[in-house]
Amino acid sequence: MFYTVLHQLVDPRNIGMIIRSHVAFGGKGFIFSGYDPPYKFSKKNKAYSRSLEKHCIAQQFAKSDDLFEWLKNEDIKSVAIEITKEAVLLPEFVFPEKCAIIFGKESGGLPDELIEKCDYVVKIPQFGNIGSMNVAISASIVMYELNRNNKDIKDVDNKMYSYS
Amino acid sequence: MFYTVLHQLVDPRNIGMIIRSHVAFGGKGFIFSGYDPPYKFSKKNKAYSRSLEKHCIAQQFAKSDDLFEWLKNEDIKSVAIEITKEAVLLPEFVFPEKCAIIFGKESGGLPDELIEKCDYVVKIPQFGNIGSMNVAISASIVMYELNRNNKDIKDVDNKMYSYS
Repeated sequence: MFYTVLHQLVDPRNIGMIIRSHVAFGGKGFIFSGYDPPYKFSKKNKAYSRSLEKHCIAQQFAKSDDLFEWLKNEDIKSVAIEITKEAVLLPEFVFPEKCAIIFGKESGGLPDELIEKCDYVVKIPQFGNIGSMNVAISASIVMYELNRNNKDIKDVDNKMYSYS
Repeated sequence: MFYTVLHQLVDPRNIGMIIRSHVAFGGKGFIFSGYDPPYKFSKKNKAYSRSLEKHCIAQQFAKSDDLFEWLKNEDIKSVAIEITKEAVLLPEFVFPEKCAIIFGKESGGLPDELIEKCDYVVKIPQFGNIGSMNVAISASIVMYELNRNNKDIKDVDNKMYSYS
């Protein structure tokens, strides 16, 4: 069971794409951290998310301290996705049963003080001479890996599913 | 060694994100299929791709027949990424040493007659009740899986790499 946490992401296109992947990969809670006022699902933003936020429980935390308290109370392990020297490579990481995958904003990523509060830090291996991966893509790759051994696959051979 | 083929994708944001992932995952050729006139890297389009197309050999084929002839001559196996009943699930697929992963346009995906010409068809497992995965995200997940056992990982702990 996984939760997705977005910490201060700004681009509604990225947020929308991540919501779509979150739902496609069977995520549970979708959490906004560090948004004050709360992130708003305006008409434009819903176009990017295809209104799929209604298929997951969305929560908002103005302060990340409140997020971590909630995670602790719910017994959910926190997994920061960030490029640091100590981060575990994604294919080698064993995800806890109940976890929250946490992503930082487009410029700057996750702040150090937030990373320090997380139970784990994970990074995606890269192979080219120049790395440049969109945050929505990084998030979706993590969701894919997290479900790689999940056998509860939905029948996707119908009109409900497409790569669009 | 993998090549990425885009068949008639239209959104320059998607194309740009796929080029970024292609470079990050160490892809070789980047191929446009079914573009007549050829896809143009305008100033706007380069903003989406971060001009990374200059880091890979980009080719254009107006007709997909010419693409398949070229693939055959180069001994590159073709792997259509599409949701079909017969498609192999991505985590179970063993990628050929030299392969081209082929993606179709945002609305409609790959045409049946193109899929029939491919050596393999692969789909991404989904777990939610509603599937809605962006094509750039699907492409990047496939590139991740393709490199999952690749040990030639670049040191990404520097300013050249970020999730942005």
